[in-house]
Amino acid sequence: MGRRNLEATDIVRYEEDGPRVVLLDQRRLPDEEVELECRSVAEVVVAIRELAIRGAPAIGVAAAYALALAAACGDDLDEAAELLAASRPTAVNLAWALEQMRDDPTPGHARALHEEEVERCHAMAAHAAELFGPGTRALTHCNAGGLATGGYGSALGALRTAWERGALERVWVDETRPLLQGARLTAWELEAAGIPHAVIADSAAGSLMAAGDVDCVVTGADRIAANGDTANKIGTYSLSVLAAHHRIPLYVVAIDLRTPTGAEIPIEERAAEELTTRFAAWNPAFDVTPADLIAAIVTEHGVHRAPYVQSLAALV
Amino acid sequence: MGRRNLEATDIVRYEEDGPRVVLLDQRRLPDEEVELECRSVAEVVVAIRELAIRGAPAIGVAAAYALALAAACGDDLDEAAELLAASRPTAVNLAWALEQMRDDPTPGHARALHEEEVERCHAMAAHAAELFGPGTRALTHCNAGGLATGGYGSALGALRTAWERGALERVWVDETRPLLQGARLTAWELEAAGIPHAVIADSAAGSLMAAGDVDCVVTGADRIAANGDTANKIGTYSLSVLAAHHRIPLYVVAIDLRTPTGAEIPIEERAAEELTTRFAAWNPAFDVTPADLIAAIVTEHGVHRAPYVQSLAALV
Repeated sequence: MGRRNLEATDIVRYEEDGPRVVLLDQRRLPDEEVELECRSVAEVVVAIRELAIRGAPAIGVAAAYALALAAACGDDLDEAAELLAASRPTAVNLAWALEQMRDDPTPGHARALHEEEVERCHAMAAHAAELFGPGTRALTHCNAGGLATGGYGSALGALRTAWERGALERVWVDETRPLLQGARLTAWELEAAGIPHAVIADSAAGSLMAAGDVDCVVTGADRIAANGDTANKIGTYSLSVLAAHHRIPLYVVAIDLRTPTGAEIPIEERAAEELTTRFAAWNPAFDVTPADLIAAIVTEHGVHRAPYVQSLAALV
Repeated sequence: MGRRNLEATDIVRYEEDGPRVVLLDQRRLPDEEVELECRSVAEVVVAIRELAIRGAPAIGVAAAYALALAAACGDDLDEAAELLAASRPTAVNLAWALEQMRDDPTPGHARALHEEEVERCHAMAAHAAELFGPGTRALTHCNAGGLATGGYGSALGALRTAWERGALERVWVDETRPLLQGARLTAWELEAAGIPHAVIADSAAGSLMAAGDVDCVVTGADRIAANGDTANKIGTYSLSVLAAHHRIPLYVVAIDLRTPTGAEIPIEERAAEELTTRFAAWNPAFDVTPADLIAAIVTEHGVHRAPYVQSLAALV
């Protein structure tokens, strides 16, 4: 697989021959590029739960392919959809993708959804890149790249487009504990794209902002409520408070809008062992950033500003 | 070595028989309790630089013993002091301890300085514990425990005293990337003291505060300027902004006062490899928290409030 030409089908695809869902095992990156072959819905569920594939849109695409796999295997589609929907409680894209697939659970339909997802990223990126002035030094958290969306990326797509337009100077990459999606996946994608970057400890972001070295914060989202409240990787909320304190804009590049407010978004708590195997720990996977700390939400339809209830309403 | 009875001499001590400086190798904790024997100043310098012993007061104590070792070995004391002072640029305790030792570079004098340091911790802890109401849920960062001070601890000493007085409910422990002093050392000390605790990713602190689960933030300090600006482990500044946003007090338990303002405190940048061996990284060891984000600074003389230039002036 060519690092410089990571295609949507490298990240996740369906093979009729088998049949099977094939995905790039993101747990092994950046050290190894290994594909994982799932020949049953149960295997896809494990791959999603154990983060071989992660990122709300990419999970949705994988679930769509998994439902096509279920149909090809003659599985009960209700059962399959239920198993898949429960694999990550915060990623509502799962339920949405499964709903879309029910009337036509074919590989061709899943591929069409996958292509739409990548097109949506390109559209979001083109809108978001307008927000970048020349020489922008952006900070990002977790991985909202092609790996997270099934191709091109949302926040990282925006950075990519800004880079191509000459508006981006460098990217600060939060390493993103506990699973290091920033240090492992985002840095890997930025390196492949030739974009200057440096990894930092999550707790160093405040210092960088205070030093005047951050012009904007750009993240994706796992969920966006209709009022603009946004659930994303744990630590995004802390960044939003730090950015507001330093008068640095936080841009969220994503779409969802299936919940009225952030309070209704369930937050997955993952095993303490991801943090420490020795002591007690609390390990939420996500947090909710209130809409008033977000400077703009960028969807494929454009750049939306507060009040989000109004500016996002047309999209629901 | 009994885990429940960690004595000052378990953390660092001088043995005439050798002669040598013996210290508990903090890099191996919590998995192994191993002592490191330093038979030359150069070996102590390496131990400090590579964090076998860390925490500004503990480093000062180790440096004092190292100067006694230099004298016993017939080394040039100026050279020895210069080597030791350069081992960690932010920890001014080094220079201070060395200065104290110059007129009387004996093991007895070093032991007296060590005992004073531990007594200072007990005094600070007694004052700081007054700040804790019943049922306090405190959040701490890095390790300001007995391991960092050569016995009892500053911030962790305060938590210990509050616990003994029945005022502490639990401690949230920032894991403290990249070297995990919280997850490895603070959790280990809290477990030994029987204080309920849970480790969190540094980036989860904001979420916990937003949920109303944190009553105060308590940290030590590597340096405190005369105006109250405080240098401490990278991430403390981010915590101070988050705490201010959530109207939660940040208490700093320590003393120094040898610099006019935080701008004059040199910040050590450590090797990128501590964060990632694969990509570019920026890895400052400390940050500076401005005095206006600190609710109180606690020294052995009492609880000091803003304006610190005045409230701390009597101590200089």
